[in-house]
Parts: sequence; C-alpha cells; structure tokens
Amino acid sequence: MTLRVMDVTPWEVSTNNLDKEHKRLVESLTSLGNGYMGMRGNFEEYYSGDSHLGTYVAGVWFPDKTRVGWWKNGYPKYFGKAINNVNFAKVDIHVDGKRVDLYADQVSDFHLSLDMQHGLLTRTFTVHGVKFTVKRFISLAVKELAAFAWEVVAVDGKEHQVTFTSYLDGDVKNEDSNYEEKFWQVVAKDAQGASASLSMQTVANPFGIEQFIVSAKQTFAGDFVATEAKAQELDVYNTFTAEVGATAKYFEKFVVVTTSRDYSDLGACEQAAAQLSQKLAGQRFSALYQEHATLWEDRWRLADVQISGKEEVAIESQQGIRFNLFQLFSTYYGEDSRLNIGPKGFTGEKYGGATYWDTEAYAVPLYLALAKPEVTRNLLKYRWQQLPQAQHNARQQGLQGALYPMVTFNGIECHNEWEITFEEIHRNGAIAYAIYNYTNYTGDEEYLKTYGLEVLVEIARFWADRVHFNTRKGQYMIHGVTGPNEYENNINNNWYTNYLATWVLRYTLESLAKFARPDLNVTDAEKDKWQDIISKMYLPYDQELGVIVQHDGFMDKDLRPVSALDKSDLPLNQKWSWDKILRSPFIKQADVLQGLYFFGNEFDTATKLKNFDFYEPMTVHESSLSPCIHSILAAELNKEEKAVEMYLRTSRLDLDNYNNDTEDGLHITSMSGSWLAIVQGFAQMKTWNNKLSFAPRLPHIWDNYAFHINYRDRLLKVTVDAQKVTLNLLEGQELEVTVYDKPYLVTKELVVDFGG
Amino acid sequence: MTLRVMDVTPWEVSTNNLDKEHKRLVESLTSLGNGYMGMRGNFEEYYSGDSHLGTYVAGVWFPDKTRVGWWKNGYPKYFGKAINNVNFAKVDIHVDGKRVDLYADQVSDFHLSLDMQHGLLTRTFTVHGVKFTVKRFISLAVKELAAFAWEVVAVDGKEHQVTFTSYLDGDVKNEDSNYEEKFWQVVAKDAQGASASLSMQTVANPFGIEQFIVSAKQTFAGDFVATEAKAQELDVYNTFTAEVGATAKYFEKFVVVTTSRDYSDLGACEQAAAQLSQKLAGQRFSALYQEHATLWEDRWRLADVQISGKEEVAIESQQGIRFNLFQLFSTYYGEDSRLNIGPKGFTGEKYGGATYWDTEAYAVPLYLALAKPEVTRNLLKYRWQQLPQAQHNARQQGLQGALYPMVTFNGIECHNEWEITFEEIHRNGAIAYAIYNYTNYTGDEEYLKTYGLEVLVEIARFWADRVHFNTRKGQYMIHGVTGPNEYENNINNNWYTNYLATWVLRYTLESLAKFARPDLNVTDAEKDKWQDIISKMYLPYDQELGVIVQHDGFMDKDLRPVSALDKSDLPLNQKWSWDKILRSPFIKQADVLQGLYFFGNEFDTATKLKNFDFYEPMTVHESSLSPCIHSILAAELNKEEKAVEMYLRTSRLDLDNYNNDTEDGLHITSMSGSWLAIVQGFAQMKTWNNKLSFAPRLPHIWDNYAFHINYRDRLLKVTVDAQKVTLNLLEGQELEVTVYDKPYLVTKELVVDFGG
Repeated sequence: MTLRVMDVTPWEVSTNNLDKEHKRLVESLTSLGNGYMGMRGNFEEYYSGDSHLGTYVAGVWFPDKTRVGWWKNGYPKYFGKAINNVNFAKVDIHVDGKRVDLYADQVSDFHLSLDMQHGLLTRTFTVHGVKFTVKRFISLAVKELAAFAWEVVAVDGKEHQVTFTSYLDGDVKNEDSNYEEKFWQVVAKDAQGASASLSMQTVANPFGIEQFIVSAKQTFAGDFVATEAKAQELDVYNTFTAEVGATAKYFEKFVVVTTSRDYSDLGACEQAAAQLSQKLAGQRFSALYQEHATLWEDRWRLADVQISGKEEVAIESQQGIRFNLFQLFSTYYGEDSRLNIGPKGFTGEKYGGATYWDTEAYAVPLYLALAKPEVTRNLLKYRWQQLPQAQHNARQQGLQGALYPMVTFNGIECHNEWEITFEEIHRNGAIAYAIYNYTNYTGDEEYLKTYGLEVLVEIARFWADRVHFNTRKGQYMIHGVTGPNEYENNINNNWYTNYLATWVLRYTLESLAKFARPDLNVTDAEKDKWQDIISKMYLPYDQELGVIVQHDGFMDKDLRPVSALDKSDLPLNQKWSWDKILRSPFIKQADVLQGLYFFGNEFDTATKLKNFDFYEPMTVHESSLSPCIHSILAAELNKEEKAVEMYLRTSRLDLDNYNNDTEDGLHITSMSGSWLAIVQGFAQMKTWNNKLSFAPRLPHIWDNYAFHINYRDRLLKVTVDAQKVTLNLLEGQELEVTVYDKPYLVTKELVVDFGG
Repeated sequence: MTLRVMDVTPWEVSTNNLDKEHKRLVESLTSLGNGYMGMRGNFEEYYSGDSHLGTYVAGVWFPDKTRVGWWKNGYPKYFGKAINNVNFAKVDIHVDGKRVDLYADQVSDFHLSLDMQHGLLTRTFTVHGVKFTVKRFISLAVKELAAFAWEVVAVDGKEHQVTFTSYLDGDVKNEDSNYEEKFWQVVAKDAQGASASLSMQTVANPFGIEQFIVSAKQTFAGDFVATEAKAQELDVYNTFTAEVGATAKYFEKFVVVTTSRDYSDLGACEQAAAQLSQKLAGQRFSALYQEHATLWEDRWRLADVQISGKEEVAIESQQGIRFNLFQLFSTYYGEDSRLNIGPKGFTGEKYGGATYWDTEAYAVPLYLALAKPEVTRNLLKYRWQQLPQAQHNARQQGLQGALYPMVTFNGIECHNEWEITFEEIHRNGAIAYAIYNYTNYTGDEEYLKTYGLEVLVEIARFWADRVHFNTRKGQYMIHGVTGPNEYENNINNNWYTNYLATWVLRYTLESLAKFARPDLNVTDAEKDKWQDIISKMYLPYDQELGVIVQHDGFMDKDLRPVSALDKSDLPLNQKWSWDKILRSPFIKQADVLQGLYFFGNEFDTATKLKNFDFYEPMTVHESSLSPCIHSILAAELNKEEKAVEMYLRTSRLDLDNYNNDTEDGLHITSMSGSWLAIVQGFAQMKTWNNKLSFAPRLPHIWDNYAFHINYRDRLLKVTVDAQKVTLNLLEGQELEVTVYDKPYLVTKELVVDFGG
C-alpha cells in the first residue's frame, strides 16, 4: 500500500535512481519554498517524459468559474485556484548541439538530494560525456530570489560545447482549470545582453478579483558567455555557451520575482525586480547560498526534533519529522500576515484555496511552540481581517453571524460541494478554538480582548442561529452537517459539532464576562439565548454501550472493524462507490476522538479509552489529518503499538505515499501532525489552565528523542530516554513544569526519572 | 406567483398578444409533437428577440461528458442529452426586400393559437402591409412529416414582392452542453430546383454510443416560384418568390425527417427521406392536414375529459386537462417500444435523458386507461430490455441485482448528483410497481410470467443486498437514501423506500409462487432471506403522534406549516440556500403520502387522514409530481377545497407557470397527474384486486365532468353531475362495477344517484 522512492537518511531526501515511472511523486518530495514562492522538484532542463510542472507564488491566485453538475442555491461563483506561475527554472541544455533530455538520453551518475538542513536541492547526472551538478535554493535571505548553479565538467577526456538557454516561460497552465481556460497573459517582456524579464498578469475575471501581476527577471554569473537574448510571444530567453573540458565550468542563474501584492502596478513590479537584480550583480551562488543556509540552520536550532535508535525505523521516524517540519516551514514561517497555509503549499495545485481549518486545528499548536507568538497572532489576525467575508458567507446560507469558509483565498467561500460547503460547519468552531489555544498557550489575553472577541461573538451568533430547538425533546439540535468524518454527509447532531458549538458559546460568554466590548452590541437576550443553548444542547450518547455517539443514526449501522474488510477494499475512497462509503461504519478521520483531543481536559481517561476502543477500529485514516490525533490519544492511553503505527503514518505520509496521491503534491497542512504526535503524544505535553506539563512515553522503537518548545518567553529543550526525562531551560526565566503529575521548578536543567 | 400568458378557452391555447417578454414561455406552451419528433413554438421566420430554439427527434441523443465539481466513485461517465436537431422550420421572409422580424417590426393582427383538438398551430400577423397566416402540424399520419403553410395577402391595397427562403439548418446547439461542444456535424447536403436535403450525424464520442444520423428533406407546394437553391456549409435553402396583392397566395413547405434509428446508414436515411418526399409530391397541405386531424379526433374520442360549469374556473379546469393530455400524447402514444417519456418531451432540452421513474409512477396508470394494453406493455418491456444495463448500474454501486437508473436514454445511469444517482433508489420500486399495476389493471398475467418476473427478481435481489441488519434492534434498515422528497438527502429509513422495498420482496415471492421460473435461479436461501427482510423491516412510526415518520430524524426538525412562511420565501428552491431547505421540515413532493397512494388498499382511511393532515401542511409542491397525489388523497378524504387547489395546480402547472420554469419546456411526465386527479381523485376510480370501482365526488366549481376509460376490453364513459353518476358501456361485454361501495352489473348504461 505504501511506496518509498527516496532513501532513508536523517537529514536528506535522496536517491540515485532516475525514477521515470514515479517522476511526479519524486517532484513533490523534492519541492522547495521560502514562504513567498516555491516550486516542485521539476528538472530545469527539458524532460520529455511525464512531469507535473509547478511554480507558485504565495497569495497569487485566480477565481476559476465554478463547475458543478447541478447548481444549488448558495454555491459560490468561483473556486480560487493556486495557479501555476512563470516557469523561471526552465533551461535548455545542449551538449555539442544535442538537447539534454534525461527521459530519452543515456544517463549515468544520477543523484538527486534534498538537503533539509540547508534547503538545497542538488542533482548530478552525466550525459553525452559531460557531468552536470545542479544546485538550487529559494532564498530565505532574499524572499524574491531563486538561485540555480550548474557545475559542468567533461568526464570522457574530450572537449564539448555546452550551451544553456535559460527561459522565463509564461506559457504555463493549471492541469485542473475548470473550463480549460488560460489564467495568464504576458504583459511585458524584455531580453537584452545577459538578462531578460517577463511580466504576466492574470486574465480578467467577472468576480471583481484583483488581476495579479508577477514580474520575473533573470540574471547570470559564471564562466559561460552570452550569445543571444530574445523575447518571444510568451517567453524570454538568454543563451550562454562555453567549451567544457576536464576543468569544471560554472553557469549560475538568478531569478527575482516581484508581484503586485507588494508593488502598486506593472511599472513598480518591474522596477523592484530590476533593483533587486541590480543588488545581486557581481555576487556568486555560493555566497548567496551561505546566507540562505544559515537561516535554515537558525530555524532548526529552534525547531529540530532528534530521534535516535538502533533500528531502521528510528531513522525513518527521524527523517519523517524533519521532512514535515522542512516542508511546513518552506510553506509558511509567519512573515506575511496576508497569507495562510495552503493544503499543497508550493508543491502542487490540487484542492485550490490557501486557507483551510487545518491551520487552526493542526498548525497553530506547532507554530505556537516553534515560532514567536507573532506568527500565530498573524494566523489569527488573518481570520479577523476576513470577518466581513465570513459574515457574507453566513448570509449566503441565510444565517446570522459569521461562517468561516471551508476553502478560500480571500475569505469568501469558494468550495462547491454542498455537503462540505454548506454543512461542514464545524470548521467555524476551529477558528474560535485557535483563539482559545493562542490565549491559553501564550497567556497573552490582549489578542482575545482586542481582536478575538469580535470573531468569537460573530461565530457564536452563527451557532445560535444555526441550532434549532426541538420542542418535543426540549433540546437544541444541529441538523444537516458533515462532521470531521467526511465519510458521512448531511447528518444530524454530530457530537463533535454540537459539543464544539456549545463550547464556543461558553468560551464567548466567559470572555465577554472578562472583557467588556460594548461595541459588539451583544444584548442580554442574546446572552440568555446562548446560555439556554449551552444548557440544553443535545449531545448524543449511548447509555448501553457507554460511548459517545458520533451522530444520530451511527449506532444503527452495520458496525464492523476495518480489520473485517478485505485488503483489496482499501483505500475505500479509491475502491468503493461513494454510496457504499457513506452507508458503511468506516470513519475517514477522527471525529468523536477529535473532540476528545481538543477538549482533553474535559473528559477523563476512562471516557477517552472507551471511545478510543470503540471508534479507532472503524477508522480508515483516509484523511491526512487523522492519524496524528489517534497517535496522540493512543500515547496518552498507553497504547504504544497504535501510537507508533499512527506516528509513522502521519510522519511518513508523503515519504511513503500512504494515500497514493503524493504525486499531486505534499499534504502540507497535516505535516504538523507528526510533531503533535511526538510532543503532545509521546511526550504528553499539555498546557491546560496556564500550566505546562509533560508525561513522556518512549516508544520501544526509539532509544531517545528530543525537541524544543517556546513557551511564554522560554526556550525549553526536552530530552527523553529510557532512564530519564531532561528539561533544559535554554532561554528565559525559571518556570514551573509538571512532569508525571509532579510539579517542579525548572531553573536550568531538570532531570526526572523516566516514568516519574 | 403564477403567470398566465395564454387565453382560457376549452380547446385552444391562444393569444392576441405578441408577448416579447415571455417568448420562451409561449414557445413552450405552443409546442407540437407526434411521438416521433416535435418542436417548440418557435416562429419559423427570423426573430431578433430572445427565443429558445428547439427541434427534437425521439431517441436521438448525445452522451455529453459528465461535468461535476468533485468526482465521486460511481459517477456515470456521461450525461445523455436530448439534443436540438436540424432546424427544419426555418424560413426567412422578405417583403419588398425587407426581412420580416416580429421582434423589431411594426406588427398588427397578431394571433397565435394552438388547436388541441386537431394538433394544429396557427399564427397570423400583418407586417409591411401584408397579412400572413401560418399553419403547421407534425403529422400523426406520416410520422416523418412536418408541414407548414403560409397564406399571404396584401391588406394595404398595394402589390408586394414576397420571398420565402426556406432552410434546413444544421447549425444548431444545445444551450446546456457541458463543455460548450457542438453535438452535430453535417454529413451530406444537396439543394436543387425546388427541394433540398441535409443530413447530420452526431459527433464521435468516447463512450461507444451510436452516432445518430438524421436526414431531412424539404419540398414545396403553392403559388410561389422557385428562384434559387443552395447548399452552404451548415445549411441548405430554397428561395421562392411571388407578387402578392389582395388575392391570397399560398406557400407550403413539407419536411420529411428520417433517422438511423430506422434506417441502416446515411444512404438509407437519405433514400427513405427522398422516397417519402416523393410520395407527398403533388399533395397539398390541406389534405395532409385532414388525415392528421382525423387521427387527433380519434385519440380524443377515446380519451377526452369534459368538464363544465358556470365559473371561469371550470373552463380553466377544462383547458388544463386537455392541454396535458394533448402534450402527453404528442410526446408518447406507444408506437415505438424503444422509446420512453422524456421529462420535457419535444418542448425543451432541460434535464436530459428520456426515461424517468415518472413513467412508471404517473404515466402508466393513464396509458392503461386511455390506450390499448400494448402501449403500457411496451413501456414495461422497455425496462425489461434494459435489465442488463440496470444490473450494470447496481454493480457500479457494488450491489447485486438490478438498479434502474434515475435518468437514462439507454438504461445506463447518466445522472451525476450523488444524493440522487446513488441514493434516490426508491425509483427501483416504481419499476416493480408498474408491473403489478399493469397486471392488476389488465388482468393479463402473461407479461408478469414471461418478462415481469425476471425484472422483479433482479430488483428484489438489489433490495436484499441494499438493506442491512441492525443487530442491536433486530431489524432491517435502509440507510443513505433520498426519498421522493428530494428536499432531504442521505437520510436513513425513509418510510416510503423501506415500505416499497418490502412490498417488492413480497410481490416477487407471491409471483414466484404462482409462476415457476427455474431459469431465474432463485434459491430457497434467497427466498428465506427475502421473507426475513419482509418480517423484520423497520418502518418508522411515531407512537405519540400516531403518524408514519417520513424518515429517521424528521420528527426532530423544527416542524412548521408552509403557511408560517413569508410569501417571499417561496418557491424555496429559488429563494433559500440548499442548506436551509435541507434542514427545514418543508417537503418538496409527496413522500409518505406517495406511499399511501401507491398502497391505498393497505391503509385505512383514518391512517390516510392522520398522515395527510400531518404532512400536507408542510408540503411546498415544488416538484411537478406532487400536487396530483395530494389532490387524489384529498378527494378521497373529502377535502374538496384542497383537492381542487391541487387539481388546478397540477392541471395548469404550465399554463399558469406555477413553478416559474415553463420557459425551459413543459413538465411532460407530470401531465398525467391532472388526469389521475380527476379519475382516481374526484371519481375515486380504484382497481384493487381485479375489481373496478368508483365513488365520485363533484367539486362545487364544476357542474359536471365526464371521462372515458379502457378496462379489460371495455370502453366505458363515466359522467358525473350533481344528481347522478352515469356509466355508459360503449364497447365490450358487460362488467361488474362497484359504485359507492355497491356492486352493479353494467350492460349498457348504469345510472346511480350521486353519492350512492
């Protein structure tokens, strides 16, 4: 079921195999990004085999006209697509007039390696007697910069004429455009001497969405001589040539990309690109790389997780967590408050949109611990800024308050499956939960008071309008929802949704009691209504079985464990009709358990155990967001085997292609899950009620593990081995920490016996 | 909420108003057809205003590539579209060189009239000093023939040069093609002297669906002189001219249309069209019309329903039922067993497909009574022929047996909303019910034995696989369905579906007990399983309220009557978001009541009354199939006002544009509903257990009404007035009939006091 195409090493994702069959998968796994822009691991030079070209710039998108079979009232008018951008990596390489094509040519010495420690992609190959070593990075130091370097050397004792034709190619499209429209037009181009530039603008749209401009400029360094520069209809290029013998020669390409997100118009974009290119003039790849690599090292210093052990699985574990952190940070590091974390980051175009509830539910806890509070604050503020759009979304459904979208770029809902768009409204609770999470983790109540409350009140108003009162039963209910388990649609009284809605009302009332915000016009009648809903919400529970009921009717299903299925039935979403999936008891993704995770302090261990034992065997984890939650709970419940299984599944989801879809891009938003599984799962870090606590477990497959966290102005390193738990306070003032239920004061180093 | 654009008269649908604003609506209402082909009431000549061009040939369709936002496993690959065919009505008329255009020109004397008694559309208009009277019909006598005649006379005392350029135009498209593809290519054309021909073929498709060929040939008669003939890229034309003064001159156009459904290839189609045209040579419009009109009179002799009364509403009632019978017979009169009754007939392209469960549920009872048994037998055999495709459909869902499609041309499901395609499986029960209906009505068990049982067994196998056993409750359940009320999706235990499924198993077992069919390989184990399901099926019922429960969870809704809504909320499907509709208690279409109608003999009056009173107030009737069922039950329950309201709604649905969508075409398949409302409703005709009975009601808005029925080789006329019920046996042997619960023998005429 899994497929592993890259070698297992602690810091690299590499292979010596030119894998033509799984090219797209390899491209996904070797993606690079710097939060501003990024690209899949496409070869720079011509490749005649199958490949999925993808270069993306954050926040640059296109509203693609909605495509549905049957229109339903409330559907959004467009679907926001992450669009394939100017292909700035493109080169044609000729050796003695023969165009290099690794698909068709005889290739030796192939090696491909992503250095996660430094954010560098290196590739070597020998073709036509010439060995090429290509390196590239997307700079952390200069966000607009992508840099490429080729080392070229003849290995057959002969001299060869090698030419590079380097393009900025505007002739790009998305594989998944709804009506096969082009999203781009070229609006300016220039090619002279040893540089060229190309500006593109998204085509006009009828939805009033900004037509983004992207300007790219390429300059060069090294030993090759410029011979031609040309601007064509949809691209520009510069050609360079050199005679190459046994002494290595270098060809270096620098691309600067600016956009109308940062500059006012085409002229300003072009000018900024030119100025940035000017600054780089005379610099070489190696120096630019050094600046970049140092910043990656800084990130790792704060965030690295170390795992060691004698078994191969320990290295798999190690590589998995680093890969996920690397790709997550490549996608988002909190520099731009207008951005969020797209499901594929810069690694693919699928799903569209750039903002999912995944951010709030799965990514926020990681950024809280691994980055400065400002980063998470930016993520929260992003939602606050989009409150008017969320209000619009609620109105579209005929409801009060605010409904945050399932998928969006600009805050307006753009997803178009009614069972998701209209019904998967638990997402709205996650937005509120993140405000709580930030406040509780950081202890900073200022955000809640100033911004958060406004969001909370509008979400509360949504829930208060969305529930209905069942007069006969004297209880409030929420009908017609899809819970986190998307293998059920249009269900009634999803426990998770009902519980979360009630919690939102509760937290909002508590917060309003703390901080007066008369400007929000919350009336006493509203508060009374909310209180009434809190006290009379229906929360399905099965007395006989003693478990929470996922939703009305779930217990009437033909309940069976996944183990009762034939292996050939999995994954269900590829093997079964949708109808059969919906009727089955099989759960795509943690649902009741997601609630027990979110509100872990409101349920006792016996309840968690009972529900875990009931729901886990029916869960197929066909959402990338599922295994981490199960791993965390399994660790808490001392189910080591399950916790490890789920950890490997979440941490190596892409590296081992568990869901058979990584060729479309990486599962960026779920990548935080592997970190959560280690820190909140194995180490049992909890932060309830302003208290930091740990109760580390050590899975037998590891000898030890260590990680860092930021917590209220401290930098703490936690190391767990078979003998002891060590807490090192690397920065900040002394801190009370509970370890295995006992309170300690950590001043510099605290050592507690393993198991307490 | 309603919109009436045509005058109210007993036998016509006419207007003196050239209604440019509602042109599409008028076009729908003046459609003509003969079961083989038909067209909307488009003007023949050029019209620069809005119009919806539509000419259709039965059984000629195109598999349009499925369009959905998100693919779900099990979706069909294509959606079968009724395609706009060669525009054979087209003419350009010039008066003294000026092209006639009723949208732009000064027009007087406008009159438009559909004569339902004779199937003739007449239009008069005066423009540029010339009065035109256009007549057209689609022949019942020669199915391939469409005939047009223009009477032209100058009314301004001058002479005018009038030219007609008559086209066969192959440049047609569907308004709703999924990817804006053309469905047709012109494959042969010829224009010489006073005739022209054009052949078109549907373009290639990747689904293995036949590429249909349609050949059209036009010939002419009358006083005009041919001046030009020409074949262009996508059309052919003949031009005729005459000087017209105070003496009327005539221009007549005859079009013959043949298809590859009847002829083997292009050559054969062309040859057949030529031969048919040859036969018509020398004939005039008036004689051809006479043959045609006589056949319409024959149809009415067997089928007419007469309603009279002093109030306008009686004429409205009269016109309504005749309009519906006229359009229904124009669509289908049982001549071709390869055809079925499409939702829009020849009046529009919307919905696609040509076969819906509407046929079995609503049309079969009408055809049983108004046509020879062969007609209904043909409708049933149509499904029998498509059993392999129905088995394919079941396999697509991973199920055994046969699943008849929601929408199809060829038996393969082509609809693509999961909540309908995968879930609205009650349709499968209606297929079985029609077999029962035919057998019970005609007394002919031969069909059941020879063909019907095979279908029943496969449908029974489907249900037996589709249910699941709820171990805890010890009952069988059916999860994940959409009932007839499509304002609920993915519900559990829809009472109608559960009851119908059980009934199918029961009827199949009974029939198998009667007729041995060892070739169907029904094992004892299967029969035991079916029996077990019958005895343990869960049928939701609310003890406290004493009503059947539409489905699990329905009673938990915020139950309110439609009358509690603001008028501006209606129709819900145009005013509310889908989400709000789904959560509401409002019912699109009879659901529980549909079951009480189907199985009227299995429920007592008290049960019907209780459930009618409960569900009717929540029903919005936004399906055209709903009001008739409510009218029938209301009549039975002596709720005259409701019965009349629902009768008018069903009988004048299109004439008064109740659902604000008649511009897209007429609601053909629901047109039988108004007849059912009269015969099964007001007259309370029932045929349970091989016994014919009546218990007529007379709504106070009518003085009397009369209708005919075929029943077991008899032709019976039933006349109801305030004093008496009269049964006239017009054909066939004496017959036992129950009237107001008393048995009578009808030999020639039976008169029973009104009310018994």
